[in-house]
Amino acid sequence: MKIEASPAPAQIRGFRFSGVHGGIKKKGRRDFALIVSDHPCACAAVFTRNRCAAAPVVVAREHVSSGRVQAIMINSGNANCATGEQGLKLARWSCDELAGRLGVAPGLVLPCSTGVIGVQLDHRVMARAISLGVDALSRRGFAAAARAILTSDAFPKWASRTLRINDCEVTVAAMAKGAGMIEPQMATMLAFVLTDAKLSGDAARSILESSVSTSFNRISVDGDTSTNDTCVLMASAEAPGVAIDGPASNGYEVLARAVAEVLDEVSRMIVRDGEGATKMVDLMVTGAADDAEADRVARRVANSPLVRTALAGADPNWGRIVMALGNTDARFELTALELDVGEVALVRAGTVISDDAVAAARRVMKRDAYSMTIRLGAGAGRATIVTSDLTEEYVRFNSAYTS
Amino acid sequence: MKIEASPAPAQIRGFRFSGVHGGIKKKGRRDFALIVSDHPCACAAVFTRNRCAAAPVVVAREHVSSGRVQAIMINSGNANCATGEQGLKLARWSCDELAGRLGVAPGLVLPCSTGVIGVQLDHRVMARAISLGVDALSRRGFAAAARAILTSDAFPKWASRTLRINDCEVTVAAMAKGAGMIEPQMATMLAFVLTDAKLSGDAARSILESSVSTSFNRISVDGDTSTNDTCVLMASAEAPGVAIDGPASNGYEVLARAVAEVLDEVSRMIVRDGEGATKMVDLMVTGAADDAEADRVARRVANSPLVRTALAGADPNWGRIVMALGNTDARFELTALELDVGEVALVRAGTVISDDAVAAARRVMKRDAYSMTIRLGAGAGRATIVTSDLTEEYVRFNSAYTS
Repeated sequence: MKIEASPAPAQIRGFRFSGVHGGIKKKGRRDFALIVSDHPCACAAVFTRNRCAAAPVVVAREHVSSGRVQAIMINSGNANCATGEQGLKLARWSCDELAGRLGVAPGLVLPCSTGVIGVQLDHRVMARAISLGVDALSRRGFAAAARAILTSDAFPKWASRTLRINDCEVTVAAMAKGAGMIEPQMATMLAFVLTDAKLSGDAARSILESSVSTSFNRISVDGDTSTNDTCVLMASAEAPGVAIDGPASNGYEVLARAVAEVLDEVSRMIVRDGEGATKMVDLMVTGAADDAEADRVARRVANSPLVRTALAGADPNWGRIVMALGNTDARFELTALELDVGEVALVRAGTVISDDAVAAARRVMKRDAYSMTIRLGAGAGRATIVTSDLTEEYVRFNSAYTS
Repeated sequence: MKIEASPAPAQIRGFRFSGVHGGIKKKGRRDFALIVSDHPCACAAVFTRNRCAAAPVVVAREHVSSGRVQAIMINSGNANCATGEQGLKLARWSCDELAGRLGVAPGLVLPCSTGVIGVQLDHRVMARAISLGVDALSRRGFAAAARAILTSDAFPKWASRTLRINDCEVTVAAMAKGAGMIEPQMATMLAFVLTDAKLSGDAARSILESSVSTSFNRISVDGDTSTNDTCVLMASAEAPGVAIDGPASNGYEVLARAVAEVLDEVSRMIVRDGEGATKMVDLMVTGAADDAEADRVARRVANSPLVRTALAGADPNWGRIVMALGNTDARFELTALELDVGEVALVRAGTVISDDAVAAARRVMKRDAYSMTIRLGAGAGRATIVTSDLTEEYVRFNSAYTS
């Protein structure tokens, strides 16, 4: 599914970027990116819950704990995961190397990696990449960096907002990558949100956490969660205006909404770019006994291969949804089930309305993007998951992806 | 994956069978089967745990509770699921109708259905099917019945054993269907095991439960569990010899082993026939903290789309297994992880051994069937799941399957 790219944000006060070919990927493709702020920044990050977290995730978790960061270093083409002590050493050494080049403390560097698991990164290649990356740093390098972090992505992903807080202009911009291993509890994805607002560390943390819960934690492509997921928010504080220390501060709500919006936008781009995906479906579950049950139901339906192949075929095979619902522990009566496909009422009282409704649902399912609503009739719990279809192209791509 | 069919069992004392075209499926394909014993039989059954169990499952659960059954009636082409009160009435009416024809009590009939969900079965069609089925009953109808229960299956599935218990010949034979919605806690499948042994109801129950736990509950094709799964054991008691009342009885162990073997055999046929499957993989997990953790790990790996597409591509992409392992709650250290592909040691101490090992693993993965062993190094827990690969053909088939 190709989407129109909006122009990349021109620049964000206080940040420089680069995206270069360092030699990790083949054929001269960009594989190394830097995001560097002029001064140490307030910073927050969330990471994968995969128990086999990659070496850079281990190091980044340590470094971000201070709440101050000045540089993010991202390589694509190699996840530096399941690489043992050697991989951990390489991640630490890379931070030291970049910090030396920038003249900052190593603890101010966050390393991120994405790509194949289980292959060692080469010191010399990384040294060269770091050197090239530092030389290429530029105020206008946002798009180059956003391209260098891609792996199997079909297109770069970014979104931005310019807003006014107390009559001062503030920018919020996000870049992201990810097209496979996309599941609950963060996608196989890296995302970086940058703002020039004057955010405290606490405010950055609460804004990031609430934004991730409504964006990356609500998408699912294939039920597989990666070892390297990382989402970072950095605030350079270069915009004029007063500081935003927490939810009570003037401007907090406006800024939080902007961050949630750009993350929602790039997370939907990830679903649209899901390997082989041809459709994006907003799957809404309402009427569950509670929100947690609604969430489990939405994820189970979104991750069912039989449901997702039906989406690919634009087939209103609602029986597969019944099957998937029945495989959860959700409390509901089949006789109360309702299902809408887009604006079409397909199922009422647990059974299909008519052949005409099936035909109308089929027409909706031929669209690129639509919603499905499952009403369980058991309570007030609700949840939404954004998912995509399972196509032959997904299988073809992932059967051939090099080990 | 095509497999050689062994000859169907000629007959089993005390049983008659039929498999006819009743008009549920199109193009004259068989869609209705009967298995009828000469007298009420000791019987045990296990059913799907899907919460949206089909109407025939609801009725069969009631009828089997007496422990005595004389007829099993199976239609393919329609699951009679999500069909509300009307579907439930039809299931009960069908039992009455068949019982009347056979001159037995309706409670001695078990109804089973498989096929599309959410479509009403027609009374007149069922009446005709029942009439044709009764007329066609024959001692030699096993293969016809085994063919009539199929849906998307590429080939019929049966297995049998002839054994001697106390110098008397006893037959055990199973027929099954299933090729999609195959997952933990029974597959989308129907299976019927018949024996002429003199089994008590209690012995039948304990033999069936232990056999299902080592066969159908250990296979996984796509993580989706159907609404209609049913596995029935009937014992006609027509063979000479003493009665088998329980585990202490002479012959119990031999008979239990034979039932376990035929169910293992037909459950593996289901995996081989998994929609689009080209490979069958015995995935063994050892060294887990306990058996339950080993089981969760094996299922998570077996159900990961990224692992299963790698199987399709004969790609020893062990990083995807690390990723899937990390998405469980299993306690283990990545640095202790070992992975064998067939006889090839691929991963030791959490990392890949050599390029040669990768090449050797790739050769094993080109086979039709092989094993993978994951050793977690955390304890003595172990589990095995038999799974298949995820191919483009699976997606093609399930995108096109009619709703």
